[in-house]
Formats: sequence, C-alpha cells, structure tokens
Amino acid sequence: MLTKGDPMNKPIMMDLRVAPLKDVVRQLCEPESCKEVCRAPMHDQPMPSIPALTEIVDRLKGILFPGYFGDSEVTPESLTYYIGAGLDRVYRLLIEQIKRGYCFLCRFNGEEDCDDCQEVAVDLATRFITILPHIRALLATDVQAAMAGDPAAKTPGEIIFSYPSITALTHYRIAHELYHLGVDMIPRIICEMAHSKTGIDIHPGAEIGNHFFIDHGTGTVIGETSIIGNNVRLYQGVTLGAKSFPKDAAGQIIKGLPRHPVIEDDVIIYSGATILGRVTIGKGSVIGGNVWVTESVPPGSRLTQQRPSSQLFSGGEGI
Amino acid sequence: MLTKGDPMNKPIMMDLRVAPLKDVVRQLCEPESCKEVCRAPMHDQPMPSIPALTEIVDRLKGILFPGYFGDSEVTPESLTYYIGAGLDRVYRLLIEQIKRGYCFLCRFNGEEDCDDCQEVAVDLATRFITILPHIRALLATDVQAAMAGDPAAKTPGEIIFSYPSITALTHYRIAHELYHLGVDMIPRIICEMAHSKTGIDIHPGAEIGNHFFIDHGTGTVIGETSIIGNNVRLYQGVTLGAKSFPKDAAGQIIKGLPRHPVIEDDVIIYSGATILGRVTIGKGSVIGGNVWVTESVPPGSRLTQQRPSSQLFSGGEGI
Amino acid sequence: MLTKGDPMNKPIMMDLRVAPLKDVVRQLCEPESCKEVCRAPMHDQPMPSIPALTEIVDRLKGILFPGYFGDSEVTPESLTYYIGAGLDRVYRLLIEQIKRGYCFLCRFNGEEDCDDCQEVAVDLATRFITILPHIRALLATDVQAAMAGDPAAKTPGEIIFSYPSITALTHYRIAHELYHLGVDMIPRIICEMAHSKTGIDIHPGAEIGNHFFIDHGTGTVIGETSIIGNNVRLYQGVTLGAKSFPKDAAGQIIKGLPRHPVIEDDVIIYSGATILGRVTIGKGSVIGGNVWVTESVPPGSRLTQQRPSSQLFSGGEGI
Amino acid sequence: MLTKGDPMNKPIMMDLRVAPLKDVVRQLCEPESCKEVCRAPMHDQPMPSIPALTEIVDRLKGILFPGYFGDSEVTPESLTYYIGAGLDRVYRLLIEQIKRGYCFLCRFNGEEDCDDCQEVAVDLATRFITILPHIRALLATDVQAAMAGDPAAKTPGEIIFSYPSITALTHYRIAHELYHLGVDMIPRIICEMAHSKTGIDIHPGAEIGNHFFIDHGTGTVIGETSIIGNNVRLYQGVTLGAKSFPKDAAGQIIKGLPRHPVIEDDVIIYSGATILGRVTIGKGSVIGGNVWVTESVPPGSRLTQQRPSSQLFSGGEGI
Amino acid sequence: MLTKGDPMNKPIMMDLRVAPLKDVVRQLCEPESCKEVCRAPMHDQPMPSIPALTEIVDRLKGILFPGYFGDSEVTPESLTYYIGAGLDRVYRLLIEQIKRGYCFLCRFNGEEDCDDCQEVAVDLATRFITILPHIRALLATDVQAAMAGDPAAKTPGEIIFSYPSITALTHYRIAHELYHLGVDMIPRIICEMAHSKTGIDIHPGAEIGNHFFIDHGTGTVIGETSIIGNNVRLYQGVTLGAKSFPKDAAGQIIKGLPRHPVIEDDVIIYSGATILGRVTIGKGSVIGGNVWVTESVPPGSRLTQQRPSSQLFSGGEGI
Amino acid sequence: MLTKGDPMNKPIMMDLRVAPLKDVVRQLCEPESCKEVCRAPMHDQPMPSIPALTEIVDRLKGILFPGYFGDSEVTPESLTYYIGAGLDRVYRLLIEQIKRGYCFLCRFNGEEDCDDCQEVAVDLATRFITILPHIRALLATDVQAAMAGDPAAKTPGEIIFSYPSITALTHYRIAHELYHLGVDMIPRIICEMAHSKTGIDIHPGAEIGNHFFIDHGTGTVIGETSIIGNNVRLYQGVTLGAKSFPKDAAGQIIKGLPRHPVIEDDVIIYSGATILGRVTIGKGSVIGGNVWVTESVPPGSRLTQQRPSSQLFSGGEGI
Repeated sequence: MLTKGDPMNKPIMMDLRVAPLKDVVRQLCEPESCKEVCRAPMHDQPMPSIPALTEIVDRLKGILFPGYFGDSEVTPESLTYYIGAGLDRVYRLLIEQIKRGYCFLCRFNGEEDCDDCQEVAVDLATRFITILPHIRALLATDVQAAMAGDPAAKTPGEIIFSYPSITALTHYRIAHELYHLGVDMIPRIICEMAHSKTGIDIHPGAEIGNHFFIDHGTGTVIGETSIIGNNVRLYQGVTLGAKSFPKDAAGQIIKGLPRHPVIEDDVIIYSGATILGRVTIGKGSVIGGNVWVTESVPPGSRLTQQRPSSQLFSGGEGI
Repeated sequence: MLTKGDPMNKPIMMDLRVAPLKDVVRQLCEPESCKEVCRAPMHDQPMPSIPALTEIVDRLKGILFPGYFGDSEVTPESLTYYIGAGLDRVYRLLIEQIKRGYCFLCRFNGEEDCDDCQEVAVDLATRFITILPHIRALLATDVQAAMAGDPAAKTPGEIIFSYPSITALTHYRIAHELYHLGVDMIPRIICEMAHSKTGIDIHPGAEIGNHFFIDHGTGTVIGETSIIGNNVRLYQGVTLGAKSFPKDAAGQIIKGLPRHPVIEDDVIIYSGATILGRVTIGKGSVIGGNVWVTESVPPGSRLTQQRPSSQLFSGGEGI
Repeated sequence: MLTKGDPMNKPIMMDLRVAPLKDVVRQLCEPESCKEVCRAPMHDQPMPSIPALTEIVDRLKGILFPGYFGDSEVTPESLTYYIGAGLDRVYRLLIEQIKRGYCFLCRFNGEEDCDDCQEVAVDLATRFITILPHIRALLATDVQAAMAGDPAAKTPGEIIFSYPSITALTHYRIAHELYHLGVDMIPRIICEMAHSKTGIDIHPGAEIGNHFFIDHGTGTVIGETSIIGNNVRLYQGVTLGAKSFPKDAAGQIIKGLPRHPVIEDDVIIYSGATILGRVTIGKGSVIGGNVWVTESVPPGSRLTQQRPSSQLFSGGEGI
Repeated sequence: MLTKGDPMNKPIMMDLRVAPLKDVVRQLCEPESCKEVCRAPMHDQPMPSIPALTEIVDRLKGILFPGYFGDSEVTPESLTYYIGAGLDRVYRLLIEQIKRGYCFLCRFNGEEDCDDCQEVAVDLATRFITILPHIRALLATDVQAAMAGDPAAKTPGEIIFSYPSITALTHYRIAHELYHLGVDMIPRIICEMAHSKTGIDIHPGAEIGNHFFIDHGTGTVIGETSIIGNNVRLYQGVTLGAKSFPKDAAGQIIKGLPRHPVIEDDVIIYSGATILGRVTIGKGSVIGGNVWVTESVPPGSRLTQQRPSSQLFSGGEGI
Repeated sequence: MLTKGDPMNKPIMMDLRVAPLKDVVRQLCEPESCKEVCRAPMHDQPMPSIPALTEIVDRLKGILFPGYFGDSEVTPESLTYYIGAGLDRVYRLLIEQIKRGYCFLCRFNGEEDCDDCQEVAVDLATRFITILPHIRALLATDVQAAMAGDPAAKTPGEIIFSYPSITALTHYRIAHELYHLGVDMIPRIICEMAHSKTGIDIHPGAEIGNHFFIDHGTGTVIGETSIIGNNVRLYQGVTLGAKSFPKDAAGQIIKGLPRHPVIEDDVIIYSGATILGRVTIGKGSVIGGNVWVTESVPPGSRLTQQRPSSQLFSGGEGI
Repeated sequence: MLTKGDPMNKPIMMDLRVAPLKDVVRQLCEPESCKEVCRAPMHDQPMPSIPALTEIVDRLKGILFPGYFGDSEVTPESLTYYIGAGLDRVYRLLIEQIKRGYCFLCRFNGEEDCDDCQEVAVDLATRFITILPHIRALLATDVQAAMAGDPAAKTPGEIIFSYPSITALTHYRIAHELYHLGVDMIPRIICEMAHSKTGIDIHPGAEIGNHFFIDHGTGTVIGETSIIGNNVRLYQGVTLGAKSFPKDAAGQIIKGLPRHPVIEDDVIIYSGATILGRVTIGKGSVIGGNVWVTESVPPGSRLTQQRPSSQLFSGGEGI
C-alpha cells in the first residue's frame, strides 16, 4: 500500500493509474478475449430493448385490465380511446422488437439478407394483437382461480392489482402467444421480466390451461415442454423440470424434446415439490410439499413425503 | 407471409394493419369482455399509487434508520429537521393512500357514500405515526438477531443497509400496524413490494415477536394467521402455510379462519421446510431443511428428513 | 372516529394532527431510541451509493460483454473507445465507493484517522481493473456451461442477454475479486443486487471454479466459505449452507470459520437440495432434489430422497 | 479563516457549523420574517402544479397539431384514439389545476367555504375543451401568416414544429380562452411558460385576431388590455405597453383599466418599437424599428426613427 | 353553475362531461379541421427527435470543449477514449436525425421513394464529423474574443462554461456546417434550441467570421443571409434583419434572396441597434445603441441616435 | 452520393465511415487543437455542477418563500422541519460547489496546494446562510414593488409564484451575497441560470437597493459595476452597460473599473433604453423607451426619444 508521506508516491501512483487502464483496454479488445462474449451484430439490428419491452407489457396490462393499470381513471366513455391509443402504440413498438428478436437469432448472412424482416414483424404483430381478447378471457379465469384458492383474497380487484400470480401469468400468456407465432428471443425476455419480479419462472413454451393459480410463487419453475391442464393450483417452490437430456451422436444435447411433466386437470401441488421428466400427474391428484417425483402417478393420487425423523434434544443451536 | 416484391402487398398489408386494430379495440371494449377485468371505480377514487407507497416506505426507512437511508449525512443537530420533514411528508402521503385503499374495497354504493373516508384516513394515519417508535424498537431487536445469527455479519450497520431480512421486516412491521388499524389493501401492497425485492412473502396479518431473523430468505412464506414468538430464526424457502380451506354450506371458502402454524419462542427452521396447518412448533425446536410437517411437535423437538437413498453410479448426466 | 357534521371536529382534528407529529419526532430523536439504528458517520464519509454501484456494475457488463449491454452498436472500430471510456468511468466511481465501503466498517477513531483511505482505494481499484480480463475469461466458460446444460438455450447471445445465471455470476465474479482484494461492504452489496434481481444468493467470499451454471436459480444460496469446483451445475432452490456456528468462550459466534460445503468438479445438484456444513460432495456426484444432506458423500454418488408415501384418495381439496 | 494545522479547529468549526443553522432556522420561522413571503393555504389546496400544466399544454399541442407533437406516428385510423385519450387526460388534469388556481386567489374564508370549487372547475374545463376546434382554426391562420411573412420558411410543418411564434401563440390562445372563462392564475402561468421559452411575453388578457405572426420574437411584450386586429406582424423586441397607471383616491393603482395600444388590421411593427398607452395604430400602418410612440397614428402611416447622427472616426474601441 | 345540493346534479354533470368529449374529438378529427395542422408522414419517417438532437449537441460540446462539458474529469490519457466514444455515438444519432430532417421536407411521393435517404444521411454525417476540428478552431477564437471584449471575464474557462455567447455560437457553428451540407430542418432546430436558452437567434444560413462575440445577447437576431466578418462584437438586442421581401408575379415572397446586412471586420454594434436590408456596415465602424439603420455606412463610421429630448418634471409616475 | 444498387458500395461506405472517425478523433486529441479549449483540472476538482446549483437555488426558493416552492403544503407546525432540513441540505451542497468554484479559478499550482479549500468553503457557506433572513427581507420589498408597479398583479402570491422579476432577483440576491463573500464562479452561474430562464441578465456584482421591480424583463442587462438605489423600476430591454474599456499600457483591458451607470432612488426606465458608462441618472428621473444615454442627467429629469418621422404611404409591405 502506498504511504502518503512519501513525496515520490503521487507520481508513481499516477503512473500506476494510467498504465493499467491502457493495458487493460488493450487486453479487453483483443480478438481472443472478445470471442464468444462480444456481439457481432446481424443486419445492423440493435439488441432488443428492455425499456421498450417493459412499455409494451405495461401498456398491455392497461389494455387487459383497464382501470387497474395505466390510466387508472378510465370511464366507459373513454375506454375506447385509451384502449385504441394503447393498442396502436403497442403495435408499433412490438413490430420493432419482434424484428430485433428475429434478427438476434438470425443465422443468415453473406448471400442471404434480412429484407423481409420488417414484413414478417408486421405480420406477426398484427396476428398477435388479434389474440388479445383471448388472452384476456384466459386471465379472467386465472383471477377466478386465485379468488377461489386463496382464503386471504377479498376481491378480484385486489388479486389483479397485487398478486404475483397474475403478474407472472399475464407475462406468460402474452409471451406464450408470441412464442407460438414463432417470435424469437422476445417471449423469453418477457417471461424473465416476470421471473425477476415475482420469482416465478414459466418458460413461454409451456402449455397452461384455464383457471391456473400459483400461490406466493417464489421459486416455482415450469419448464419449456410442460403441459398443464385446467384448474391447477401450484404453490411456491414447485419445480416442473427435466430429469436428463438425451444427447445426439455428437454428444450434443438434443434440444426441443418433450422432457417436462404433464399435469392433468384439478391437480394441486404443494410448496417445494420437485417433479422431473416426462411424467404425468393424473387428474385430481394432490402432491404434498417437498416431495421428489420422477415417475407418473395415477389420477386421484395423494403423495406426501416420508414422515421426518424426530427426536427431542436438550438444546444447543443448529442441527 | 407477405412477399416484398409484389406491388399489391403494401396496400393489403395496410388494410390488414388497420382492420384488426379497430376490430380488436371493439372486442376489448365489449361489456362481456370487460366484465371482471375492468375496474368500476367507487367514489371516483383512483387506484392506490405504487410510486406514492414507494416514497412512503423509503421515507419511513430514513426515519427508522437515520443516516442509513435517505439523507445519509444526518447529524445529531439536523436529525430533528430531517425526521420532522420526512414524517410530515409521510403523514400527508399516507392519508391519501389509506383513503384510496379504503375506497378500493369499499362495498357501499347508491344510498351510502364515502363522505367520512377523509376523516377516517386522517385518523388512521395519525394513529399510525404514533406507533413508529414502537416499530423502530422491534426492528432494533431484529438487527440484533441477525447479528447474532449470521457469522458472516460484521456490523449492525451492514445488516441494516444490505440484509434482505431487514428490508422484509421493515415492510412487514409497517404493514402489520396498518393492517391492525384496519387499513385495507395498502398493507398487502407494501408486503408485496418487499416480496418482489427479497423473495420473502410475509402476510401483513401474521403476528411476529421480537428478535426475528430470516437468513437469505428467498422463497420463505409466512401466512396470514401465522403466530411467531420471540427469537425465532428461519432460513430461505421455509413455508408456514395452510393445509386446507374449510368451505361453507355454499361451497365457498370460509375466509379468516386460523389456518397457519404457531411457532413458539427460540425455534430454528432450516431452508425449504414446509409446515402446514394450525400446528404448533414447540419452544426451542429445531426443524431440519426440506421436511414436510403437518402435525404439531412438542417443545425441544429436532425434526429432520429421512436420510436420502444413496448409491454410487458410473456416470451419465442427470438422475 | 370523528364525525363530519360536528362543527367542533375540525379544530380538534387539527390538534390531533399536530400534536403527535411533534411528539413522535421528539421520541424518534431521543438518544435511547436512536441507539443502534442511527448511523454515526466515520470520517465524514457518506454511505455507499446504490446508484453509483448500479452504474459501476452496468458499465462493467458493457465492458465484459460488449454489444450486449450498454452501447449496443459497438463495432470493432469503436470498441477501444467504448471500453476505454467505460473503464475510466468505472475506475473513478469505484475509487469513491471503495473508500466509502472501507470507512463504513472502519473501526478507527479518536487518535487514528483515515488519511490513507484515498490511497488505499486508488490502489485497490487499480488492482481490480487489471483482473477484468480474467473475470471475462471465467464468464465465457459460464456461458458455455449454460449452453451445454440447458436444452432450451439456442445461442450464447441469448444466454448472455437474458439468463439469470449469467447475471448472478457476473455480479459474483466482480464482487469476489473485490472481496479478495479486501474491499469492505461493497462486494456484499453487489451480490445482494443480483440476489434481489435473480433470487440467487451467492456470498462474495465463496470460491467457484469455471464452467458454472445455475439453471432458473431462484432461492439458490451459496454460503461464504463454500468451495465449488469446475463444471458444476445447480438448479433453483439449492442451499449450500452452514449447519451450526461454534461459539467462543463468551458465547459469541466465531466468525470466519469454514462452515459451508465443498462441491467437487462435475457435480450436479437438483432443485431444492439442502447441503449443510463443511461436508464434501465428491467429484461427479448427482444430488437429487429436495434432499437434506449433512454428511459428505464419496465421488460418483447418486443421492435421492426416499420415495414419497402414496395413496389414492377420493377427493376433497387440500392434503 | 480556519487553519488546518490547529488541533482545536475541528470542534470549533463544528460548533460554527451547527450554531448558525439552528439560529437561521429560528429567524426564518419567525412570524415577522414569514409575513408576506409565506403562503397561508386556503381550503387546503396545494399550489398549481407546473409539471401538470406542462403536461396539459404538451398534450394540447399533440391534439391541436397531431403528428407534430406527442405520439408522432398518428395515422388517420388511430387519430381518434389518440385525440380521445389525450383530451380525456387533459380534461382531468385541467379540472384539478383550475380548482387550484381558483383557490389560490380565493378571498373567501371563515364563514364561506370552497365547496363548489370542484363543480366550478368541472364546468370551466368542460367549456374549455369545446373551444379547442376554434383554437385550432385560429392557429392554422397563424401558421399561414408565418409562411407568408418569413422568406426563410419552407413548409408549414417546419413552422409548426420549430417556430417560437407558434409556440407562444399556442400558449397564448389556450390561456386566453381560460382567461375569458374566468380561470384564475393558470392562464398567466401558461403564458409565462412560453415567455420563458421564447422570450415572447403575451398577457392572456390581450385580444389578438387571426393571421398573427411574431418573427424571432425575443423581448416582444403585449400587455393585458392590448387589442390586435387581423393579419398583424410584429418583430422581436416590440413593446405594446402602458404609459402610466391612474391611481385612486387612496393612491392605489386602479387595476383593469384599458391602458395598452390598439393595433388595427394589417399593421407591421419592426423590431424594438415601443408603443405605450391606449393609442391606436391605424390599419395598414408600418412602424419602424426602435421608435417610441405614445400617440395614435392614422391608418396607412409609416413611422421611422430620426436618422442617426453619423461621423467618421479614426478608431479606438467603444463609442 | 351547478349547485352541489341538488340531487339531480351528478348525473347531469356526468352527461355534460361525457357529451363534449365525444363531440370535440369528432370535430377535431374531421378532415377539414385537420387540414394544414396534421402531419401526413412521408416514407413512414417519424419527426426529428428533440431529445436526440439535445444529446447530439451536448455530446458535441463535450467533444469540442473536453473537460468542461460531459465527463468532466477527462485526463490526457483518457481523452482519446472519451472523444472516440462520444463521436461514434454522435455519428450514429446524427445519421438518424439527418434522415428524419431530410424526409420531413421531402416532396417526393407516389412513384418516387426515399430509398437512398439512408445512404445520403450516412454520407452527410460522415462529412460533418470531419469538419469538427475546424469548428473547434473557430470556437477557440470566439473564446478569445469574449476574453478580450468583456472586462468582467476572468478566465477562458469561465467563458466556455457559462457565457451565452459561446452557447449560441457552438450551436450556430454546428448548425451552419450542417446547413452547408444541405441537411434539412435539423440546423434550424439546433439554432432554435440555443435561441430558447440564450435569447440569441442566429439563422444557420448566416456567414460569420472568426473572433465573434455577442455580449449578454438576449434579443439579438442575425438573419439568414447576413454576412459577418472577423473580429465583430455585438451586444444584446441587435437586429440584423430584412427590410422587405420582394414578391414574384404570383404575389408570393421570393425566398432565398440576399436581404440581410453585411458587417465587415472589426465592427462593434451596441445594444438594441436595428440594421435592416442588404446594407453594408464598413470595416471598423461603431454603431450606437437603439439606432435604426437602413442604409450602408462607410468604413470607420460612428453612428449614434439623435440626443433624446430632455426636460425636468416635478413628479408623477409614468411618462 | 453513393448509389444503392452498386454491390461495391457497402464496403466502401463502411471504410468511409470508419476512416474519418479514427482520423477525426486523432485530430481532436492533438495538443495544438486542445489548447485553450480543454480543461486542465486543478487539484483534481471537478467542474461546478449545474444540477447541484439548480437544487441549491430551488431549495433556497422553498426556504425564502415557504409554501410557494418546494413542499407546498407547509404548515406553521411543520415549517421548522422543512426549513431546517432544506437549509442543512443547501449548506452541504453549497460547501462542495463553493470549493469547486474556488478551485476552478485557482491559480496556485506546483509548490502551493489547495489544502485549505475545504475550510474556506465551509467558512463561506456558513457565512452565507446567516445572510438568508436579510435576503428574504429584501425580496419581500421586491414583491411589494411589483404589486405597486403592475396594474395586472392581483396578489403578492401570484407575483412570488410566477413573475420573472422575482425569479431573477431571487437568483441575483443570492448570487450577490456569494459574490461579496468572494466566492468564485458560482455567483455568475447562478445569475446565468436566471438569465436563461427570464432573459434578465443581472451581473452578481451589481449593487441593487430595496423595492426593485423589472416588468416583463426580457433583454434587460445590468452590468457588473452598476449601482441602483431604492424603489427603482425598469422595463424589458433596458441596458445599464459600459461604454468603453480603458486599456493598460500593454493594450489589455483593465478589469474591475467602475464603468456602469448609477441609478438613484425612485427612477423609472422604460423599455429598450440604453444607458452606457459611469453616468448618473438623478433621483426620481423618468427615462423614456429606446433612448440612448451616455451622459448623466440631473434628478427629476424626463428623457424621451426624438419624435419619429412620420408619413402616410399607400402600401406595399416592409418599410
């Protein structure tokens, strides 16, 4: 460490200060160091914009739940204006972001160019907005499911405005439709936004029926190829995951295979349960908390963890 | 997909673009679609304001922990000014938000109006601020508990400034007092703010004693009717939840019944433990991680999961 | 509650309103109430600044992953300028924050002063920036590990831009180097930022090898003295924690002892597993979800929870 | 000045630092000092909000000149939505600000209260928005006048988007209608906003015909009781002011009397001309720059300053 | 005005409230009302962005005067990084804005399209940045002129940082080069930004030599075809304007003709002087304040206003 | 211009794009180009911060005019808290800015250092805040003067809240006291802020008595050594300037000499009047608009411009 009193220190320190800056910049710009961590932009498209996607989702919330989000003093008379203006804005923003997501993963280069990206993006955004009434109808059933499944809930409005389950499902149901339309990158980002905010990690590829409710939700994970029926309720920390990943002859993981559970209608899964692999939890089953399930169970099953081992002990902290 | 080269495409695309906008707006404004998802405001009150509530909690943190949050260069001389100005501002903001929360759930309409909402809100806000010294005293014990319970903690200041446990408990202890005063909606929102930030989900209705500490905390859930004694320590992923919800004759869940655990003094519960129902964990017990507990345990108990089944295996990935 | 119609109410209410404000301010300023919760600043240093630390980490992301974060349209030609400008800015901001963190925990007072804090901070910041190429090289292996370990991942770019694992590891690997340099307070805050955003709680003191991947991640905790080898994969909700804390003769927890697990190379740990204490999980082991492990396991082990007890049941909700 | 080396200085300095703070605060809170400079709020109404008024005017610009301001990508199809949503928002904001302006100058107190402020504000805001088409029609003539009067102008769009004359007149024409409706305080603030931005100071009480243009505009002042006909053009630095203010018997200025010029149709007034008092500049007159006019001039007049005195001089700076 | 006590008022008020909104929206959307005030976008280009232009000019200030604006702690070592990163950012932003300005005034439509706008904009932005060293050299002479011409100035740094003359000239010299490159719309907007901030209105088309200084500056106007030599000093409120505008056979103003004064080297013009038309103020002349000049004056002239008429008067206010 | 169709264009364009960037950066970093326009920081002090100075002035407005600016709902009870907290914040911010301003002009280097800058800054800030009651008392007389001098003014509150005269004088009176304390740089910046906002340019060195009012104000300039008595009223565009600047033997302007007018008590000066040099306008004089005055006038004088030359003319535009 440098000693202040030494009159030689200041210049030396200054040299120290300058030298590594130049040197570190040089190292960080070397092709070898940049490989794999620097973006080589395709088609001159910038990255998807998190602020734009945030605005898109926020405005969609205002459109799906008028009066709860966005311009909260919507009246029946002004509803058309607000929904129309919001939707037009979403539509324009979405075209740009779809195009960026599309180009982000674009593999074409050299001879092939990206001339129809704009047209594709317009087409996909157009299709997406026509699905909004359907998305709203599904979310309305999710609100009912929360109302029915949480004794602490007093009104649907409270659920819409403050329940993480509705936040996560709004993001998921939007992202899922974009995913099905073939939009790249953007659906995943939209779901990650909800993951960061709620701790609920639903892959946009999962299929989820109506009347779905995740209580508390932190740590719950629903994998890409999961299929969930109607009227299912999960709690926090539930994992619907994959057990193992088949590899191809070259030793590479084969992507896209069904590898997550199928949860049939009317199932309840308590907190911390881990269900792995392409197994089926039969209709109406109840899965207790903290269990580890890697095999299918028939309809109407009740699964609980083995009773813990118990003993009295005379103190000391820890276990 | 549209082909760019076709001279007819642009007009067609424009029609496509316009048509669904109008049509989707119309669908989204239909009464049938709006039912249950649109807010019909009561008494012309806007929704509670998340930015205002954020300011309220941030200023309360600056009042409860002077010098750590807000104007960080508070001196003994300026302390009165900063606390006075902060408190006056909180008081005014809180009156407005209490009123909004109160009206949000208000069931009166037609003949009954909301004329005394303002007076009620003033009264409740006034009562709330008198409780602040008590809230601070409790939080001071929570800081002590973290200091005693985490070998990685070096100073109380570090805990106050950066531990999620203190963040979550500050929100909870504020929200809990508002909940007891009968404030609607707002306590839940304040706790959800902390839930989103820390992953710790404490219902404002829970009763929690002094010297409470949640280490790491992500995924921990403490339900509405839980009762927690003094000097309790939880880890991440602990659930104090409800097992089942009795229904009334009409098949509706009966709300408000005691349905969450009672945790007596000096209990430690390790990560991922799930304790469900109105059971009692006796004084001084230690509950091991990942257990599933649905029955009461006597004081001084030590509960651990059954030992895992173990085997050697020669490789392959996954399980 | 006050009744509106009474003409005497307004003055009374005003008195009520005024009285507690003054009284509560007075109570909150009493030395007894302030003790332990008010900061007595050392050396006139303000608290570490969360916005400054956020800028530091955001700019470091732009330096480590050029084109993905920050100025996204970086070209090979402009790379040097952007990295140079970003690094100079980080360097200046970091000196200030290191100094604040250092003084925050500073125990010297009275006769000893803080005159060399500035020099120490310059020295530490200088050392830190020279480590950045090393940090980037490690993170590049983490991206590869995610690509290899998640069948849903399509490109490295998608992982860099949107995977919580990379967010958490970028914060951790930055914080870890600062921690090793002896910087106080700041590393912990940087890791808590990622904890809040991703639900992944890695203590900056933990030692983690290359090719590390945490899938989903919410609720995963890696304690201060954990040691993790190369090519390890964890899932959400995994705890690498401490079992108990030895106390000294005075009954105080002894801080700094090794008390967290050692995870050897090529281990996979599934969601919700809790591993406590200074135990070793041998090379190549696979730990199933939701298990509770407090003893070492040899290399090549496969550990799973006992099978759940199962029964059919004819209905009713709950468990 | 304090000397650093003296060990006694720090405490002394601290005392110096503390003492005046308390003392100055006390002085500044004394009733005598506060008199006339502190606001005693009427009816518990806060001050008019500059940010809210800024939003009102900005949104009105987007409504009056669609596509130029606000959401710039308005199409014929989305026009109704954007104007509807913008107008509804303006309407709500305006009600609140009218009420504040009204109460700001309210002279009633004690026995009389402000119970109908809300109704009055709703009524005035409602009337105001019905005048918007008229305001737009007038502004369209102002754009034409600028196009005709400035050889540097290439398109109407350029004038709408960037000419200070249009900015000032948009503010003025909005404020003037509010002024005529009897709104207090707010019109003046709206005109001052334009004054600050453009240097053009038009009192909202002035009467101005169609096709009005102020080129450059900085320093031009149009007083409260000015009357300006159609097709008038002013340049920068023109004053239409009052010469003297008659006083009443008590020596107080009599407010509200006509005291500013009348400018008839088709007049041009060049930069820096000062015209004071209730004089009339006859139709079609041209007033040269920098003249001082305190008497009426007949239609068709041309007024210029006396030729300057001129001489050659052999150098030196200044005059 | 509505009376609160009447139970019928609320519905009536609501009707009043609703009715005009719909009606006004309809009126404001009628083609007749929209004509001339609504933008019909060309080539789907949005309007030039004021925030982007503000960023461009702010970054250019940081590039032209390093250490004074922008990242103020630039050192010789980091200078290259900051200028390089700033310039790259300006370059990208400028391409977009040039394109928008170009399209804003674009007259092509139908058969002709705007396919080369992007190439043109890239070309113009490229040319512009090569001129920056020249712009800086000119501005350095302007700083010298202010230092020489204002006895209140103590250092060049103070002039660079706080004098409106330098602000206005920086905007002008940037805008002037863009104007000469043929960029549409953008130069005018950049000059209007300075006009709004300083009250100095310089048209980007004016030609201005080196060592130029405008003291105080508010209200000074320099018209489009003005020519100003080297070492000229103006004060506030000086007009270099046009006297009259020749019209073509159709009665339309002929645009683009030389119509503003020529000011030769070493001239001083005092505050409030108005000089109109294509006249020449000969080298070394001094023009006194408030004069009205519409004829050329030879080199070395000294022009002052006729002495005012003076009289003693015994009081009364006003004139 | 580049043609799109040519397949060779893109690479060429890219080269063009890259080449000048590097080249221009190099040119702009050459010492010759940087000379005089780059800041060589003294004592490692950053530039004064405009946002910090803006906050200082805004908070001072809230302290000087409680209830009008800042936290507008101040009550007699909370006044002390708000003024105390605001003043403490101003005090801390001001110390830092005074230090920066002091170092900005600091001429010491090499052997002499800046070790007592901090102490000086603390001392000056301490002295400044004790002057605030005096500043407020003066501003209260300025409000009275505006009330008495403007027939359009209805209440003092309106004047405080919206008159540019009060804005300019608040900045001036704050800056003037800092100027007298010997603070460098900062007073000038504070006055320039008001100049930009109001068009009124008062040098902080000017001496101005009580009951001062500038109506409209745009373009009014009051030079550094001006002396203005009590009860003076100016209008827009008035110049109190310098006529010529004596030079020393070396041809350098001698700085600091008295060179601006003395305006005695009870004088009124109408818009656009220019008064230059160390002349005296005697008590109670009235100076008409647009006059050019370079000689003293006795008390009680009335000065007006020569009558303009007038003629009728039959049309044509312009003059």
